Amino acid sequence: MSSQTAVSANTEYSIVAGDQVLDTPLIAVDLDLLQRNIAEMAALAASHGVALRPHAKTHKSPHIARLQLEAGAVGLTCAKLGEAEVLVEQGGVTDILIAYPIVGDIKIQRLLQLLERARVIVAVDTHQAAAVLSQAISANDRALEIYVEVNTGQDRAGARAGQEAVDLAVAVSRMPGLRLVGIMTHEGHAGFSSPDDIALIAENAGRALVGTAERIRGQGIEVAHVSVGSTPASWFTPRVPGITEMRPGTYVFHDNNAFRHGRIGPDRCAARVVSTVVSRPAPNRAIIDAGSKALALDPSPSHPGHGFIVGHPNATIARVSEEHGVVTLPQPEPGFDVGDRLEIIPNHICPAVNLTDELVIIRDGHVVDHWPVAARGKVR
Amino acid sequence: MSSQTAVSANTEYSIVAGDQVLDTPLIAVDLDLLQRNIAEMAALAASHGVALRPHAKTHKSPHIARLQLEAGAVGLTCAKLGEAEVLVEQGGVTDILIAYPIVGDIKIQRLLQLLERARVIVAVDTHQAAAVLSQAISANDRALEIYVEVNTGQDRAGARAGQEAVDLAVAVSRMPGLRLVGIMTHEGHAGFSSPDDIALIAENAGRALVGTAERIRGQGIEVAHVSVGSTPASWFTPRVPGITEMRPGTYVFHDNNAFRHGRIGPDRCAARVVSTVVSRPAPNRAIIDAGSKALALDPSPSHPGHGFIVGHPNATIARVSEEHGVVTLPQPEPGFDVGDRLEIIPNHICPAVNLTDELVIIRDGHVVDHWPVAARGKVR
Repeated sequence: MSSQTAVSANTEYSIVAGDQVLDTPLIAVDLDLLQRNIAEMAALAASHGVALRPHAKTHKSPHIARLQLEAGAVGLTCAKLGEAEVLVEQGGVTDILIAYPIVGDIKIQRLLQLLERARVIVAVDTHQAAAVLSQAISANDRALEIYVEVNTGQDRAGARAGQEAVDLAVAVSRMPGLRLVGIMTHEGHAGFSSPDDIALIAENAGRALVGTAERIRGQGIEVAHVSVGSTPASWFTPRVPGITEMRPGTYVFHDNNAFRHGRIGPDRCAARVVSTVVSRPAPNRAIIDAGSKALALDPSPSHPGHGFIVGHPNATIARVSEEHGVVTLPQPEPGFDVGDRLEIIPNHICPAVNLTDELVIIRDGHVVDHWPVAARGKVR
Repeated sequence: MSSQTAVSANTEYSIVAGDQVLDTPLIAVDLDLLQRNIAEMAALAASHGVALRPHAKTHKSPHIARLQLEAGAVGLTCAKLGEAEVLVEQGGVTDILIAYPIVGDIKIQRLLQLLERARVIVAVDTHQAAAVLSQAISANDRALEIYVEVNTGQDRAGARAGQEAVDLAVAVSRMPGLRLVGIMTHEGHAGFSSPDDIALIAENAGRALVGTAERIRGQGIEVAHVSVGSTPASWFTPRVPGITEMRPGTYVFHDNNAFRHGRIGPDRCAARVVSTVVSRPAPNRAIIDAGSKALALDPSPSHPGHGFIVGHPNATIARVSEEHGVVTLPQPEPGFDVGDRLEIIPNHICPAVNLTDELVIIRDGHVVDHWPVAARGKVR
């Protein structure tokens, strides 16, 4: 068996040096790269003149939330109440947007408790959910800040940009206990477009949102925040005049999906799944200990297979089952003997992080800390 | 908002009754169905005249491992050492197969510790991994039982059935500290075939394995165990004369993948993701709170989309992102108002279980217990 050092020597952008103390598979995070990514997005937000409210779904880590706040973020964004609870309780976060409808009595009770400890803004996109929230909040003599979620082309959730969203915003502004403070969109569809189209699609989404905000204001209703969010669109949507806030998530780590648009390469990817070759059943096939339980199963639009093996651009993780990655090699090459280690940039880093309990923090190639993924699995 | 009871009334195979105490998404397990599935597979193994060594990867639960042992299983199977550690420490399991190569010093040290507490058999499929194990085991004056893993057509890991596997088995039988006690295959490829082909493919795999065992015995080496494993192939491979053991996993719960072969329908699926409708942005589109972080992302070969919504065969979970499921409805139908609850049979239950920290145990429609998924995320 060759040592991991041999892999590193072959690997231009390796972040893990000779640490044979690491058991695999695991997620290693290069602290310098992480901090560079955090600083650069903070600078980008400042250059757009918008507030930065990063989405915590990527890291699920109170440590990283704190780094983002220290770099100037105004608060955090979460998808689920459970993530928000962890960031407030363990990360000391005091300003948080739950960019997801709160539906059901149990969640409303949890929200009321969380409001005792932090500023919480909640997204709504239906009259039904807003009405139930209004009743519960006003019955408890509380006030809740609301963003109306607007569909600007992703066609997932959200009231349609234009009259439908205006009607919902007007209705929310009149509901007891609710205070409309902004509108938001997730222009995630821009990130799935080609490099030629992303600017156009992102800016159209931004303009649709700003236009909707203007129409709500035309009804005499204040709309303080006009919020967009999606890492690949970060260079485009927030520069639309009238946007006030951006909520990118993936940028802290970046991933294989980011390569498509040309701004980000492997050298900027701060998180890698470190994996060991456990079998070599054929010259053109190696088996690694990272399968779908380490890499997740999200496809990449820009690269075949299930992740980018750093330093081995010709190798493809052609198939994964839960604990096996099947690597195909067009030509046998060094680095795939039993016991060799590989660094893999997942196609989509967010679900990969959701599969692990801790991040192994690396500086200058060596382990310096372990950070729990404290909000892992908080789907409720 | 309609109550969940309305959904149940519409749902022939619903397992959760009116329990509004449940926050979603979660995985609910019907205890009677679970025990029926466990008993039926035990009876099937007995009818084949083979030992049952179920794969714990599906449930990752010491509770369910104990139910399997009580029903007559000879021991458990795991993919990773970390799963085995949990079953031994928390489930009192004393006989376990790690059906995966053990590679790396840290894992070998953990294996030596586990051998103090349980019978552990380890799979090997390369000379390299076997030689390193042999050195470490013999240096510690221990003995380790080995299954040689054989590739019978899945083309993932495994020495090729025939001469390659015979050579490896002979080599292992001569290595100090290692004791060859069996050979194994995972004929998972049979499960991906059509209903017309599965018997043929499974039996061919079984015959290739038995033939390899005979050739090893022809070298004067005893092969006590000839082990196969895959739930969909359970009705076929183990009936090949010479097979002594079967290792199905998914059968405890079954899932959407199982429907293809016609033996299993929704009424036999013991585990469901319970989800809430959180938005209804259009008459033909509903948003549920179960996305890829609740359902996983494995495709189904027999059903479009990301899971089967019990009682709603025309609805399709057409897209998922991490926290959103986008349900499309060809015609609007009851059950998809904001606040309604749905039971979803995932395409592949094993990775869905790996995303949650506990199983909510249901009997006669009501919660009777919570079982931790104690070996969740144990990829090392």
